[in-house]
Amino acid sequence: MVKFRPMAMNKPLNKKFSDLAETMKPSAIRMLLRVTDTPDIISFGGGLPNPDSFPLDEVREIFEEQLKINGKRMLQYGATEGLKTLNIALAKRMKEKENINCSPDEIIQTTGSQEALYMLGKIFANPGEYVISEAPTYTGTITALRASNIRMIGVPMDHDGMIMEKLRETLKKYPNPRFIYVIPNFQNPTGITMSYERRKELLEIASENDLIILEDDPYGNLRFSGEHIPSLKSMDKEGNVVYLGTFSKVLAPGFRLGYVIASKDVIEKLNLAKQALDLASSTISEYIAEGYVTKGYMERQIPKIVSLYRHKRDLMIESFEKYFPEDVEFTRPNGGMFIWVTKKGANTDKLFTKAMEMKVAYVIGSAFYPDEDNHESMRLNFTYSSDENIIEGVKRLSEVLKRYS
Amino acid sequence: MVKFRPMAMNKPLNKKFSDLAETMKPSAIRMLLRVTDTPDIISFGGGLPNPDSFPLDEVREIFEEQLKINGKRMLQYGATEGLKTLNIALAKRMKEKENINCSPDEIIQTTGSQEALYMLGKIFANPGEYVISEAPTYTGTITALRASNIRMIGVPMDHDGMIMEKLRETLKKYPNPRFIYVIPNFQNPTGITMSYERRKELLEIASENDLIILEDDPYGNLRFSGEHIPSLKSMDKEGNVVYLGTFSKVLAPGFRLGYVIASKDVIEKLNLAKQALDLASSTISEYIAEGYVTKGYMERQIPKIVSLYRHKRDLMIESFEKYFPEDVEFTRPNGGMFIWVTKKGANTDKLFTKAMEMKVAYVIGSAFYPDEDNHESMRLNFTYSSDENIIEGVKRLSEVLKRYS
Repeated sequence: MVKFRPMAMNKPLNKKFSDLAETMKPSAIRMLLRVTDTPDIISFGGGLPNPDSFPLDEVREIFEEQLKINGKRMLQYGATEGLKTLNIALAKRMKEKENINCSPDEIIQTTGSQEALYMLGKIFANPGEYVISEAPTYTGTITALRASNIRMIGVPMDHDGMIMEKLRETLKKYPNPRFIYVIPNFQNPTGITMSYERRKELLEIASENDLIILEDDPYGNLRFSGEHIPSLKSMDKEGNVVYLGTFSKVLAPGFRLGYVIASKDVIEKLNLAKQALDLASSTISEYIAEGYVTKGYMERQIPKIVSLYRHKRDLMIESFEKYFPEDVEFTRPNGGMFIWVTKKGANTDKLFTKAMEMKVAYVIGSAFYPDEDNHESMRLNFTYSSDENIIEGVKRLSEVLKRYS
Repeated sequence: MVKFRPMAMNKPLNKKFSDLAETMKPSAIRMLLRVTDTPDIISFGGGLPNPDSFPLDEVREIFEEQLKINGKRMLQYGATEGLKTLNIALAKRMKEKENINCSPDEIIQTTGSQEALYMLGKIFANPGEYVISEAPTYTGTITALRASNIRMIGVPMDHDGMIMEKLRETLKKYPNPRFIYVIPNFQNPTGITMSYERRKELLEIASENDLIILEDDPYGNLRFSGEHIPSLKSMDKEGNVVYLGTFSKVLAPGFRLGYVIASKDVIEKLNLAKQALDLASSTISEYIAEGYVTKGYMERQIPKIVSLYRHKRDLMIESFEKYFPEDVEFTRPNGGMFIWVTKKGANTDKLFTKAMEMKVAYVIGSAFYPDEDNHESMRLNFTYSSDENIIEGVKRLSEVLKRYS
């Protein structure tokens, strides 16, 4: 027996980091969320689902049942592409609900949509190359692509989504993007939905220019109002669209389950990338998700989530109308989790300190621009806060906007 | 309502792949495992824990309990570095069991050790640079580093692990490896344990050359025989060692939970990398693992797993002694999951077809060499198969070795 072992130390190893590691900085959004994570602050900052939307009883029941029937398989390593019965159930649901035709082997499960975004960047773009996205766009995508040194070129939006004339102009200057990344439904951060006409035109442009479209659809099931608009994937006659879905907003984020629907050659490359990244997603998560879909619990839960979030959206919009100064503009999302608030001439980066003094938090708009070059807006989440806090938080924010901008 | 939606298609997009995607090929091991996944084949190929080692009842109890107490937090997004109470429990256990001193914020949870290996490559090495490892070494590490275009230089082993003279020679030729990667306990694929003296010398060499050591320790808790040897991390006075642990072999792989212990600056870089890769690991997995550690179930389960695997190792070794031709050599691991079988002059790549005809499978030795330049060996897993299949499989393999090599 060896005795008197010396004690282990953890010394800084920073002189050893790779060039990539040297460039990695905490995202603005993460830094802000750290600051806002104190109990007396009302935070509209996070992108969290409301825990009241989680189907706790269903999860308990399914876990029990799957553990009894499939226990040993449920705890074992799973296939890299995901649990076969889950992919079969998803393929069926995509056909029924979204009119998307895919076979189970055109689906791969990922560790949240984040992993899908990271891997799709890796397999479609070389370091230094560029892609096109809406501006503003989801910070997680900015982070994922930046980690692979992929540039993002933003195309402005209006209330019908990405402006197609602007896209055509951008394509003249940047003619060979590796893909076009869009969130057509209730976009993060703006809450804006791309119109049917725009979707048609986007597909035409993709066809003309032989471009891949990444359709990121985390919120598509969460429509509160207005008419369903078909997904790009369902309208895609030429196979240019790669579709990203997730269980984070219709089941719960803790499972870390997202998925990609694409042609088999893309799925095969994602499979290989995933073998290098994490071998497979959690089989436990996959078995629970499979039960959730096949037992019909998901279709039963979605209207409950929609009803809860519709109420909260309405309450936040009402509070805006009651308390905000007149020159403050905001989007009126038909679904999803976020509202985009803009005050011309304001600098929301600077306002943030004042907001924190008033104990209310948001995410600065610049965090959603790849070049961080727009400072007039902020993103507010309406799904997470209590009703009381929505009203009180909007009051506080109104004060900030009145006093300091 | 939009009707008559055209049907989605999934066309091949292979002309669009990145250079990296073009180089990605299925690993030899994955291809072989696909072939061997038929019921009448006895496979010693996989690296799977025995499902009889899974603590099903404990998992059921902890899940119930955590869902009741922490349900909404358990299903929500978690912190990127992992559940705080889990990291606290792990830090305590590492001190008690391994004499490793670390604070909870010197730990990060990862989506299996695979994600840790991928991220450590990313943060410590630039594309085109090289690292040093044992030869043979774990295929998952080869895959992870290859995905970032990091070269691996292998150093030969004997029955006491990596040969330190050979390491010194290698360092003359390759003086600036970004790190040295080793699996000191019951190595994958050889089952060999690095001696105490070699560990001391490795730390000295690291100190002299100012090198980082990645100590990958998935099997450290699974010692069947022989004396415990302190981990490199616990012997490390200078802080050169980054330690990788996992719950896959002491709880179950389906949770996809591994962890890294390192200085705070390394943890911070891993945290940033993980934000890009998958945001966070599964909070459900983390809550279950936390209960498993804090309730003492893990310390109770480990001896059960050890006892099961010791029996299976003994049975396989006995069967070798009974059936193998005399010129076949094999390691006698004191723990872990694998035995390394070598027949001088054989080509196990070619033998594989014959083995498949005889309905027995292994992993070809060349899969564990970064340059795939050694063909005399094969890796056999002894943990997964039933007792009957271990005996029958070794019989079949003996026939193959006798007839065809």
